[in-house]
Amino acid sequence: MAKELKELTTRQENYSQWYQDLVIKAELAENSAVRGCMVIKPYGYAIWEKMQRALDDMFKETGHSNAYFPLLIPKSFMSKEAAHVEGFAKECAVVTHYRLKNSPDGAGVVVDPAARLEEELIIRPTSETIIWNTYRNWIQSYRDLPILINQWANVMRWEMRTRLFLRTAEFLWQEGHTAHATQAEAEEETLRMLGVYVRFAEEFMALPVIRGVKTASERFAGALDTYCIEAMMQDGKALQAGTSHFLGQNFGRAFDVTFIDREGKTDYAWATSWGVSSRLIGAVIMAHSDDNGLVLPPRLAPIQVVIIPIYKSAEQLALISERANLIASRLRAMGISVKFDDADNRKPGWKFAEYELKGVPVRLAIGGRDMENGTVEVMRRDLLAKETLPQEGIELIIQQLLDEIQKNIYRKAQDFRATRIADVDTYDDFKAKIDEGFFVMAHWDGSAETEERIKNETKATIRCIPLEGDRSPGLCMITGRPSERRVLFARSY
Amino acid sequence: MAKELKELTTRQENYSQWYQDLVIKAELAENSAVRGCMVIKPYGYAIWEKMQRALDDMFKETGHSNAYFPLLIPKSFMSKEAAHVEGFAKECAVVTHYRLKNSPDGAGVVVDPAARLEEELIIRPTSETIIWNTYRNWIQSYRDLPILINQWANVMRWEMRTRLFLRTAEFLWQEGHTAHATQAEAEEETLRMLGVYVRFAEEFMALPVIRGVKTASERFAGALDTYCIEAMMQDGKALQAGTSHFLGQNFGRAFDVTFIDREGKTDYAWATSWGVSSRLIGAVIMAHSDDNGLVLPPRLAPIQVVIIPIYKSAEQLALISERANLIASRLRAMGISVKFDDADNRKPGWKFAEYELKGVPVRLAIGGRDMENGTVEVMRRDLLAKETLPQEGIELIIQQLLDEIQKNIYRKAQDFRATRIADVDTYDDFKAKIDEGFFVMAHWDGSAETEERIKNETKATIRCIPLEGDRSPGLCMITGRPSERRVLFARSY
Repeated sequence: MAKELKELTTRQENYSQWYQDLVIKAELAENSAVRGCMVIKPYGYAIWEKMQRALDDMFKETGHSNAYFPLLIPKSFMSKEAAHVEGFAKECAVVTHYRLKNSPDGAGVVVDPAARLEEELIIRPTSETIIWNTYRNWIQSYRDLPILINQWANVMRWEMRTRLFLRTAEFLWQEGHTAHATQAEAEEETLRMLGVYVRFAEEFMALPVIRGVKTASERFAGALDTYCIEAMMQDGKALQAGTSHFLGQNFGRAFDVTFIDREGKTDYAWATSWGVSSRLIGAVIMAHSDDNGLVLPPRLAPIQVVIIPIYKSAEQLALISERANLIASRLRAMGISVKFDDADNRKPGWKFAEYELKGVPVRLAIGGRDMENGTVEVMRRDLLAKETLPQEGIELIIQQLLDEIQKNIYRKAQDFRATRIADVDTYDDFKAKIDEGFFVMAHWDGSAETEERIKNETKATIRCIPLEGDRSPGLCMITGRPSERRVLFARSY
Repeated sequence: MAKELKELTTRQENYSQWYQDLVIKAELAENSAVRGCMVIKPYGYAIWEKMQRALDDMFKETGHSNAYFPLLIPKSFMSKEAAHVEGFAKECAVVTHYRLKNSPDGAGVVVDPAARLEEELIIRPTSETIIWNTYRNWIQSYRDLPILINQWANVMRWEMRTRLFLRTAEFLWQEGHTAHATQAEAEEETLRMLGVYVRFAEEFMALPVIRGVKTASERFAGALDTYCIEAMMQDGKALQAGTSHFLGQNFGRAFDVTFIDREGKTDYAWATSWGVSSRLIGAVIMAHSDDNGLVLPPRLAPIQVVIIPIYKSAEQLALISERANLIASRLRAMGISVKFDDADNRKPGWKFAEYELKGVPVRLAIGGRDMENGTVEVMRRDLLAKETLPQEGIELIIQQLLDEIQKNIYRKAQDFRATRIADVDTYDDFKAKIDEGFFVMAHWDGSAETEERIKNETKATIRCIPLEGDRSPGLCMITGRPSERRVLFARSY
């Protein structure tokens, strides 16, 4: 076993350290010289590219186009929507000057005080304000609606406590911003995009999610309703994996975006926004990986199949390589990404450990005896199970195996969640289950006070009011007041 | 003819205004509320996406991976490479604070003076410094090399005079940053990527380019050699369409990036960087479009074929639609992007003008008589030429036509350039040709003084010392001193 592998903290020992170790050792990302900002390394970025491609296709299938709006936002824009400013204008990077000059003492450069901006600009923490300020000029009539736009961008929120992928000052994301002629259309869009996120999480990330609506206190600043998907990590904590906001006419009003409707009356445009970010890379890692390293769902794995030759001579290597390259080219023709690793400075054992660490779903090993017998050793990463199979027809078997692994990882996450979710009826049971790392379904009286008390006493928050599942009414576990239905509580990332 | 179309300034009247009108009216981009920053609208962004996809594929074919580095760079990093700081650290956006707070007078938000950064951060104008600071930890041995990384990102340079796409404070680009064990490898990489840019310009943008090396005074700040490709716009001005820099060991030295080579000796890593930006969208527009609107090369056109029904009744429309949808689905199966525009609130004439303005390469119109005769009217945008052809088998004809249009646009640009490029031997001829909007090949004595004098007197600069073409020596047209070969002069964007 390789040195790096041995050094990975186990989940049991310290889940948080295991995650940190894994991100670093699998070469996904690292901290940068700039506080709170990460470097996304090629292997981590390749996962993001697969996510982008899949999501982008789904956005386009649902009628959206991409566009690009400025990175910088005039400070005054942030104050235009009353709730928005409270949520976003505070911890943010502020640009105050536009020039540096040589330091008078000759050592480096200093800010040129003469180049002070009249109005400070902030680096976008989210783009509702600059986008709705732009939409004002694009929208006159109902015929200009809907506007269905998405943006792939970097954003910045000055976080004090950061963690690679999960919470960083700068992160990559997509933000959809749509404008509609009616409330009904905007609400429909909000739920449509929530559905896209559910499909992406389940089909690509192999991550079962609970869809629901946030309570008032957890809403996006400026939204009337925030919908979300919540996933369970292996420590039982929840991770919010996507949000879709119904913004009503708040931004239409704040930025004076009016239109003439079919009846000739003037109204404010209705808005939605929705986003997922590079934190989803963190979610995929945390949900599926094990003490040997990453376990990546095949549909997001940068390398789906690795082939490793085991040889004693250059002659034998040549023979194995010919066969390996044939298999690789057939797999590639099927759209499967393959790496043939014939590097001569690493032993097979090192390579085995390395690709386990990197979460490559399927490993093929071909040795001298395999060449004699026409066989290949196939290892699936999710179960760490090996099997020797005929080389003949191996490509179709691998294709099916990749599908099976994708499904199995999903099933495993679903089964795990099933063992960690419970209905509770008393606050004592609630506290016990939360401490055990459960998702808890409990009755709540709907008040912000009760929600706040539970949060302060247990660190659990209402992740969402689920859209599906048991809808029976009951009594709040704390106050005994009526509750419309159970809501989902958990500690969260 | 539609109102919008009539309002387009002609190239003859005012080339610069024509460009500005076209970018706005074809809905490619617009100025934003933030000085110098543009909004790239969906139609413009779709061209960028096509460019990105093509370039990204080529980068990956040549062994590069994508990654992502921080947006913000510590001020002190900029001073580490002596030439670099002069070129880039001056006109840039400076982040000095990380928090806003409610204004004491209750009106909006103000910068919180308590949240001043210890060291100011600047928004990346280019990423050599932050990337080479990172590479220091990635590189120990020759076995860690080469590092072949590209980044797709936004960058910011505080430009005073901006023009949509061509020069904006914020722009989108890709920047490749590679590290190598030897000078030869780094130089080879520099030229390889120049070659990729040539291929992209010629095969996708349909833009003939002259490849060459910059003079010392036009070099990238921190480079030993800057290679470039230069394209001619329709006003005879040059547009630099891509650069590839051999950086030597300048950044390796500045950021102390050393490695142990094969012989066990310690050396600084060798660097290259190379980039193209969203200004290429401006280049495509300027090079090919005409007084009716955009002319887009099919390989970059967001919509390659538009189908417009011409009908008198709902019944007739149904009949035409059935046929149009069949043609559209067959074209899509061939990988061709098609729009069937059956909007009932616009007349065919309006649509014709609209898609001419938008530069859609092929327009099909199907009317009642066409349905009787089994025909379709085919219009090619580059020549504005119409032809009536049988519906049967039209898909293959369109596929060939798109190829033919791509080639024709390239040929046209090449022919135009041939009429506007001249060898001159006297300074008087030089000035005359430069005033006529020519690319001028002239002898120059190799001194920065002569170069500067020509620039001041004629506004023409040395675009490059071409890598190809006539290599005969001669005498400088100004000083009469020896010249190794003719170099390319032009006014430029």
